[in-house]
Amino acid sequence: MFEMTNPVPVSFVGGESGVWHIERIDAVVGQALPAAPRLSVLEGPTACATGPVRWILRGATSNTRYTTRAEVEVLVARQAGLNRPEATRAALIPIRKSAAWWALAQDERRAIFEEQSRHIHIGLDVLPGVARRLHHARELGEPFDFLTWFEYAPDQADAFEAMVSRLRDTPEWAFVEHEVDIRLGR
Amino acid sequence: MFEMTNPVPVSFVGGESGVWHIERIDAVVGQALPAAPRLSVLEGPTACATGPVRWILRGATSNTRYTTRAEVEVLVARQAGLNRPEATRAALIPIRKSAAWWALAQDERRAIFEEQSRHIHIGLDVLPGVARRLHHARELGEPFDFLTWFEYAPDQADAFEAMVSRLRDTPEWAFVEHEVDIRLGR
Repeated sequence: MFEMTNPVPVSFVGGESGVWHIERIDAVVGQALPAAPRLSVLEGPTACATGPVRWILRGATSNTRYTTRAEVEVLVARQAGLNRPEATRAALIPIRKSAAWWALAQDERRAIFEEQSRHIHIGLDVLPGVARRLHHARELGEPFDFLTWFEYAPDQADAFEAMVSRLRDTPEWAFVEHEVDIRLGR
Repeated sequence: MFEMTNPVPVSFVGGESGVWHIERIDAVVGQALPAAPRLSVLEGPTACATGPVRWILRGATSNTRYTTRAEVEVLVARQAGLNRPEATRAALIPIRKSAAWWALAQDERRAIFEEQSRHIHIGLDVLPGVARRLHHARELGEPFDFLTWFEYAPDQADAFEAMVSRLRDTPEWAFVEHEVDIRLGR
């Protein structure tokens, strides 16, 4: 959520290689993605996957878009990084929002995102157990606007499910027109 | 500044073809770009330039990032579109901001952008004479964060120069670490 450095290009490759087993791919809103047994998470502009590829979702980390300085300070103090040894569960949740969302002005999107939906606060409730990295894809011409990647230990699974469920119940989610939920383990 | 639809990928190609003559390329901060006689503005993901190419700058239109609803309404009421027959002057101004800018939170960037620098208000002063389209490039892995394209009639040249000069004098511009100013005619 808080990147000090340049954007990192990341490709999520569904295919037959990668450390992550894909356990299920659910369509939440709209169509699912084709089944694939494994997922590779490749960083960098020239990343190459090995073996047959079913799909590739591309995004890039970027700066915060709604988070205030006060919120950033709380997040940075609490959040954990990716690749913790105990974090053997993961989720990749690609989302596309509607044209109505993108036609809103910045203050309108912020109000729905946090003041009405408490998106940041709902995410804070699962820190530091659930690590998260957001990837922007809209400007890349991709089919999704965002690819959010989560990693957590098995004992955080209930907290993670509760967070996902709370978010889907917010006013912000009324603007989600395509959402896929990919669950993984290693 | 206000795009209702999906992002439009745009490539600015410096080379030997295109309707725009490149009259000069100035380095404002950091290095300039190589000289080229003409510029093509190509829209779409599979755009191809003809003839030898000196450089390509890629970006995509996107949603507003700082503009409030009240500001959007004023802009939409006043602004003109691209490709007006009388708009025979153009400028392409690629900008890269510093890591310090991108490490700021959303409220801090907004405060510098508008409350301290009056970026939106300075731009309003030249509407509808100067048409403008902003392209985001940071998440594309490009060397610049933004490519701003301006079109205006010759009798708006003084107003355009005054606007550029006022913006470069703002607190926001202290965060600009690379800026090139390309002037064109047709």
